[in-house]
Amino acid sequence: GSGRFGLDYAENRVASDDVTAANKTILAYRLRINVDAKFEADNGVTYGGRIRFQNTNGQSAAAFSPAMLYVEASGVRVEVGNANTAFDSVALMYNPEIGFQERSFGDPLGAYYSFNSGSYGAENNRVGIYVAYSVSGVNLKASLVQPDQTLADAGPTMQDEMSVAADYTFNQFTVAAAYVQNGLGLEGNDQTFVGVAYKFSDAGSVGLNYNDNGDLTDVGGGEVGTSITLYGNYNINGITLAGYVTDLDVDGADTAYGLGASYDLGGATLAGAVESGFDGDTRADLGVRMSF
Amino acid sequence: GSGRFGLDYAENRVASDDVTAANKTILAYRLRINVDAKFEADNGVTYGGRIRFQNTNGQSAAAFSPAMLYVEASGVRVEVGNANTAFDSVALMYNPEIGFQERSFGDPLGAYYSFNSGSYGAENNRVGIYVAYSVSGVNLKASLVQPDQTLADAGPTMQDEMSVAADYTFNQFTVAAAYVQNGLGLEGNDQTFVGVAYKFSDAGSVGLNYNDNGDLTDVGGGEVGTSITLYGNYNINGITLAGYVTDLDVDGADTAYGLGASYDLGGATLAGAVESGFDGDTRADLGVRMSF
Amino acid sequence: GSGRFGLDYAENRVASDDVTAANKTILAYRLRINVDAKFEADNGVTYGGRIRFQNTNGQSAAAFSPAMLYVEASGVRVEVGNANTAFDSVALMYNPEIGFQERSFGDPLGAYYSFNSGSYGAENNRVGIYVAYSVSGVNLKASLVQPDQTLADAGPTMQDEMSVAADYTFNQFTVAAAYVQNGLGLEGNDQTFVGVAYKFSDAGSVGLNYNDNGDLTDVGGGEVGTSITLYGNYNINGITLAGYVTDLDVDGADTAYGLGASYDLGGATLAGAVESGFDGDTRADLGVRMSF
Repeated sequence: GSGRFGLDYAENRVASDDVTAANKTILAYRLRINVDAKFEADNGVTYGGRIRFQNTNGQSAAAFSPAMLYVEASGVRVEVGNANTAFDSVALMYNPEIGFQERSFGDPLGAYYSFNSGSYGAENNRVGIYVAYSVSGVNLKASLVQPDQTLADAGPTMQDEMSVAADYTFNQFTVAAAYVQNGLGLEGNDQTFVGVAYKFSDAGSVGLNYNDNGDLTDVGGGEVGTSITLYGNYNINGITLAGYVTDLDVDGADTAYGLGASYDLGGATLAGAVESGFDGDTRADLGVRMSF
Repeated sequence: GSGRFGLDYAENRVASDDVTAANKTILAYRLRINVDAKFEADNGVTYGGRIRFQNTNGQSAAAFSPAMLYVEASGVRVEVGNANTAFDSVALMYNPEIGFQERSFGDPLGAYYSFNSGSYGAENNRVGIYVAYSVSGVNLKASLVQPDQTLADAGPTMQDEMSVAADYTFNQFTVAAAYVQNGLGLEGNDQTFVGVAYKFSDAGSVGLNYNDNGDLTDVGGGEVGTSITLYGNYNINGITLAGYVTDLDVDGADTAYGLGASYDLGGATLAGAVESGFDGDTRADLGVRMSF
Repeated sequence: GSGRFGLDYAENRVASDDVTAANKTILAYRLRINVDAKFEADNGVTYGGRIRFQNTNGQSAAAFSPAMLYVEASGVRVEVGNANTAFDSVALMYNPEIGFQERSFGDPLGAYYSFNSGSYGAENNRVGIYVAYSVSGVNLKASLVQPDQTLADAGPTMQDEMSVAADYTFNQFTVAAAYVQNGLGLEGNDQTFVGVAYKFSDAGSVGLNYNDNGDLTDVGGGEVGTSITLYGNYNINGITLAGYVTDLDVDGADTAYGLGASYDLGGATLAGAVESGFDGDTRADLGVRMSF
């Protein structure tokens, strides 16, 4: 599992009563525990499953995820149930993230399925399948999520989500691409990701991410827009500085950007970030994150 | 704990919206984790407890059971709280089960308490006590469940359930019998089980189970009926074939039957089954189950 | 974690339906599991977190607490999230407790925050900070709990709770004191605890606890009153006898008292108690408790 805690500032925070003044700075924390059960059969095949529980500030108590089960052998991994998705698992996509809460306005802005850390809620019959294959630095992934597997013929907000992803690392370069159809089960909500990164030395790297964030026209919304993010990081005297700039092609959207720094505490990481969003509002955090 | 996943076909499946056409084949899975805490005292007595959490397809998230606590010494085990029950724990009762989901129309058809894998729901004051004693191949069990232990005088659907069970193995024979009074707390809902099995070789066995499934007359229902199940299994070249036939003495009930096969994957088990129910509908499954 | 089970008698028990006669004696049990994740960094600092789940008789299923995260180094411990509080953590305060359920009418009678074993419920934005420092037998603690950290200006029932505590052991004496302002977030609900204990031999000790249990006048209630408890315990032939007397300065309140005995089962403890409350009603218990 993992844990994190620290201070979180948001210029546009809203109070829980939606009326009175809000504290712009709050204490943010999350504790995540993965319960992993597995065994390796005599023939080398691994069978296992995962249920997660976690608690984040703002939630009344820790809560369970649904279960994922998997089989793994010879570089092929198949997951069912609360499976990962290809689109969410592609390399580079979340590399622009900074701060102890690992956030970025350069993350995808569209709606798509992923491993669900909390309850499915009303989508109790949701089910996913995910297949991943790795060979010689190439990672190939495909996934299918049905919002309700008992329905033979579901409506426009309950379509099958299909996604594929591929990434490849050669020397200092990594390239990655992913595509999702009917993201989050919404008809026509197709999204594309393309990313490239270059590790120019042991101390640093730069990358460029392109996201077509989908189209909600078929379900009563509009285009989410495309975003392009340039990001990089550099380690100097044990401190890693990281930053990004994101341009979103939506009328009135400001250029978003962020600057972060992190320091290894000998296992835990002290990290902070200051970011400016598409609406010009500032958010910042400073805290510690750790893995168990 | 244990896990399982695979395909589940049901000719009579109903869609979640109860209106549109249903997918007859769905992906079925379950991940079950038993949290067992225990220690052995200096005098050899073992004290412990169990809380279970699990997630099955169709449920929004994993969820907890209530707690069971126990003491064990010299072949005697006492459980309190979310205790097992004698009737549910008798030998042979579930032997007709087949498929990766371990189901059978030859299972008891009546209503009775058992260790509760999920929440008690509205029965939050339910409590059970269970005593088991084993000696020389004989297993004796007795249990009591109160649907609401705070009520001194409860109504006809909140009666104390009492059950007893005994089984005995000698040479290739096993015999078992169990009786439950006021099953599931329902007044007059008494049920009887008698089973006998014969292991004719290391490769196979046959058995016969009799179930008087109870009587709901006192709570506004009727007789559930008696059922008789003949079952057997045989291992040939590493594949275990199993089958059963169940006759239910209810007007219009078809003879139910099932045929299954399972194969040891070196710890995990590949298993499948085809069954025909009392209404003549077919169900089938094929998948993998495992223990951790 | 820990477990306990046994019989619980209450002269004034109310049935769950609030109407019919109640069983005065019920089966009481609790199973508590602490999920602790932590690691020690290279520089000796320990980072960790805790989520608890437990089930007590009367609850439908086990349930999670919110998360606490902490850092510990050089005798200083800082907790955030579902943190302990100084007032609840002071030495001696719960020493009058007896029986397998560890209860006493000599416990504080006021309302104040502590580590929350269950859900926050509606107070989902509650957050706490706790600092503890130990040196040479002196323990110093301070804590702050905000009922809703998103609100900049909360009402009289959502005030910040602040508490401090100190205790010191020298030779056979222990002294302790604690103060809490706005207990449980209630304006003006300030409480004071002072305790002293003397260990007169290896076999026994006596103590005196004073509690000013707070004032609910600002939130529509009244004074809770002050209580004074004299308690002691003595071990004779392996059996520990313990007792207490509590005087509460509220009109019409009887003197409360209790007598208990406990016996070490080699890790588990057999314990029982008989107590008489401020209303003159008797309660008693007898059972086993254990730690894992």
